[in-house]
Amino acid sequence: MTTTTAQWDIFELRLSGPSDGNPYLDVSLEADFAHGARSVRVTGFYDGDGAYIVRFMPDVMGEWTYKTKSSVPALDGATGSLTVDAPRQGAHGPVRVADQFHFAYADGTRYLPFGTTCYAWTHQALQLQEETLQTLETAGFNKLRMGVFPKNYPFNTNEPLYPIYAEKADGTLDFDRPNPEAFRHFEQQVGKLRDMGIEADIIVFHPYDRWGYCDMSAEQDYRYVAYLAARLSAYSNVWWSMANEYDFLLDTKPMEQWDEYFHILERDDPCRHLTSIHNGDVTMYYDHTKPWISHVCIQNWDVRKTPEWRDDYGKPVVNDEPEYEGNIWPAWGNISAQELVHRFWTTTLRGGYAGHGETYEHPNDIIWWAKGGKLYGQAWQRLAFLRNLLEEDAGAGLTPMGGTNSFPWSRVSGAVDGEVRYIYFGEHQPAHWSSGLPKDGRRYQVDLIDTWNMTINPAEQVPPVVPHPTRHGAIVRGGKADADFGIKLPGKPYLALRCRPLRHD
Amino acid sequence: MTTTTAQWDIFELRLSGPSDGNPYLDVSLEADFAHGARSVRVTGFYDGDGAYIVRFMPDVMGEWTYKTKSSVPALDGATGSLTVDAPRQGAHGPVRVADQFHFAYADGTRYLPFGTTCYAWTHQALQLQEETLQTLETAGFNKLRMGVFPKNYPFNTNEPLYPIYAEKADGTLDFDRPNPEAFRHFEQQVGKLRDMGIEADIIVFHPYDRWGYCDMSAEQDYRYVAYLAARLSAYSNVWWSMANEYDFLLDTKPMEQWDEYFHILERDDPCRHLTSIHNGDVTMYYDHTKPWISHVCIQNWDVRKTPEWRDDYGKPVVNDEPEYEGNIWPAWGNISAQELVHRFWTTTLRGGYAGHGETYEHPNDIIWWAKGGKLYGQAWQRLAFLRNLLEEDAGAGLTPMGGTNSFPWSRVSGAVDGEVRYIYFGEHQPAHWSSGLPKDGRRYQVDLIDTWNMTINPAEQVPPVVPHPTRHGAIVRGGKADADFGIKLPGKPYLALRCRPLRHD
Repeated sequence: MTTTTAQWDIFELRLSGPSDGNPYLDVSLEADFAHGARSVRVTGFYDGDGAYIVRFMPDVMGEWTYKTKSSVPALDGATGSLTVDAPRQGAHGPVRVADQFHFAYADGTRYLPFGTTCYAWTHQALQLQEETLQTLETAGFNKLRMGVFPKNYPFNTNEPLYPIYAEKADGTLDFDRPNPEAFRHFEQQVGKLRDMGIEADIIVFHPYDRWGYCDMSAEQDYRYVAYLAARLSAYSNVWWSMANEYDFLLDTKPMEQWDEYFHILERDDPCRHLTSIHNGDVTMYYDHTKPWISHVCIQNWDVRKTPEWRDDYGKPVVNDEPEYEGNIWPAWGNISAQELVHRFWTTTLRGGYAGHGETYEHPNDIIWWAKGGKLYGQAWQRLAFLRNLLEEDAGAGLTPMGGTNSFPWSRVSGAVDGEVRYIYFGEHQPAHWSSGLPKDGRRYQVDLIDTWNMTINPAEQVPPVVPHPTRHGAIVRGGKADADFGIKLPGKPYLALRCRPLRHD
Repeated sequence: MTTTTAQWDIFELRLSGPSDGNPYLDVSLEADFAHGARSVRVTGFYDGDGAYIVRFMPDVMGEWTYKTKSSVPALDGATGSLTVDAPRQGAHGPVRVADQFHFAYADGTRYLPFGTTCYAWTHQALQLQEETLQTLETAGFNKLRMGVFPKNYPFNTNEPLYPIYAEKADGTLDFDRPNPEAFRHFEQQVGKLRDMGIEADIIVFHPYDRWGYCDMSAEQDYRYVAYLAARLSAYSNVWWSMANEYDFLLDTKPMEQWDEYFHILERDDPCRHLTSIHNGDVTMYYDHTKPWISHVCIQNWDVRKTPEWRDDYGKPVVNDEPEYEGNIWPAWGNISAQELVHRFWTTTLRGGYAGHGETYEHPNDIIWWAKGGKLYGQAWQRLAFLRNLLEEDAGAGLTPMGGTNSFPWSRVSGAVDGEVRYIYFGEHQPAHWSSGLPKDGRRYQVDLIDTWNMTINPAEQVPPVVPHPTRHGAIVRGGKADADFGIKLPGKPYLALRCRPLRHD
């Protein structure tokens, strides 16, 4: 039997097999997918009611064949072939690390993560989930942090739509039997995000629990990670966030176990999706230099340190919790929209990526950060503006103009991407500026960006600053301009500059 | 001969002596002032034209006698007595460290430093100096950072009113001959500040030089410090700031020399005024644990670290350059008024003290931070508001509610002074809050403070936050209130709370 599928879409092989005993424990299933001399091992999974599935995301066009291998005869030795066509319109494949500190889709298209957070949105009533998807349709985010497990936490007291494991007669969960209905629903939502161009940053473990998920045994955890890999790896938009606040789980899941989870993904995720792990305490970062970590994922409100994190780990930095816009009582969830926009610009123009969350009080606790629904804030539009602006010129990615202790880049933010440079002033409001502007004799178009009012207008070019010479240490500084030209600014905060070379037509 | 003077005023003994040779080098003069069994050694100084002066600030009331000692007979063995009366109205004596991290005047009155900066104001035209004093009269600052030497720096290109040393025929300075006219003028201005209740935070050395002050020999430096001590120690409002950005002078003045300057003050300042030394680079703090340093004086925009600096040095922290309000091109001089006010509140409610400066572009470079004149900004009024507010309840001083890494005090700021507590939210805008509010069964008056609009209104007390219990690590947190009551807030940034016990009348 030959099927046709598009590159980066999902090919699904469905087989029937035993349903007695506990197929999750008793039955092994995998398939080898071959393309020329290349062979890709893909694990299958039990979907309940005697149904077994092998999912495969082909990453190149052409002819593929496959053959299954199983511990039970009914599933063993099934073969077939597969014709892989050009990708669907708008499909760019999985996101990869590119140019050390940045990201690109598999087809080379640059990807600038502008993520938001709805931890438990797939566990809410279906109508609310629909509303979340509608909001995401226009909000401008291209990544969503979302947990597999439901959430027990302030403002999160409701029962989930589905338990992730089968319920036993006494109402507790059987952590040896996943609930296929829950997973089917979860992956359906991941698929919808994929079709909207939104990466699903899937949180595998988190500590906010009253159902027992935190207390699964190591073996159960390992099987859970393998099951997720088998079910979800074929979705091109999957990112693996091994935990939210993993350090709050160290009492039941010691460090070796965390490493092992990643090894299971190395073994069972044939697509090798991006992998990260997110801290709780800022003194408890996971060692992101470990080779199975693709990018740094942290929470830290002190976003001026972004260049330090780049230096520490040598990988892309995604600070997905620089605190949330909102007004709830926990201090991580009540910064102003202005401040969150400021933290995005600061992070971005220091060579990192930030994440959005919204936490406004709601009479029914329907708060975007956990449950989705509607956005009530004022940051999201400004972040979409920033994303659009950066995508206009996105090249190999933004490199910060200086480190955390280099003047003036410790105080204002600036970054270069090829010939384009950006400077963000934040709370600074110079009336004249030339630091970080070009000094190469070429002509440039400079635009003045109002990050809050979302305007872009040509900036007024004036002679560069020429500091009066002064003694600093043994060196007399100043006396000459640090750029070919300067910019006159209106002297108010939260402005930025974009500087592009003028093209000779 | 008996004179009468007030406690903490200046008694001045004027003597005539030789004017030939170089009296600055050739003649020694000091006096012993005795009160009962106590004897205080006071050094005198040459004031030019054969005039020698010994200045003494008596620190207790009653009868004093004195006797001079000199290397020349004309000045040796002069005696007299002195009746010291009650201090003038409003005179509280020199400021001292109190309660480890805070300050009080010698008479016990609490002193909360709210300083500003006019580095070179005494070197400007007299009319401008008058204007500076007029501005200070109503601005609400009670400390002024000011240099002895003139300043050569961007926006500071004019010649000073007086050179600090005598000019030689070739126009260079004779660093073996102080210019008494310059010092008389300088100390006259220090005296005016004293009479206005403003401490003079005198900067002894700084690197911004074109006249040669930076290149004086070690011996010349030592004599200069001793001369300053002899001339100025009797002014009750003197603070010794040994340098601005001392680390930019290390090429000509090695570390041992800095220590020696302090030893000279230990020897020659009988009043033992407060002593500090201010860094340039934030990685180059002087070791403020040295015993001759009374308080930490730093520049650092990262004001949330204030509790760390308290912990590092165990002394009062004065961050006198958390960047300046303004719009000039250097990034340390162009933050918004809002931001500077924010940094003051943050510093103060973390147990430190901040300093003001204003750096708005001016057609004639008359910028407050260096030359004085007028204030054009919007921060100073808000800082006066903060000062007044804190002085209403000032006790043993503010102790931060938490350290840099303690939740939520790493994100918002809170401090306690006896029974009064303050919480400052900054960019945070919770709609409800109870962390850090009392849990002792007593009743409190809580006021809501708008730090920008300078309003104080009763806050609405509501039931405290009771977090839904959740697993965090092995501990289930939440489930009970963290205070007796909560506060309902309007959900906008830059607000603060003041919480005072209700008195039972």
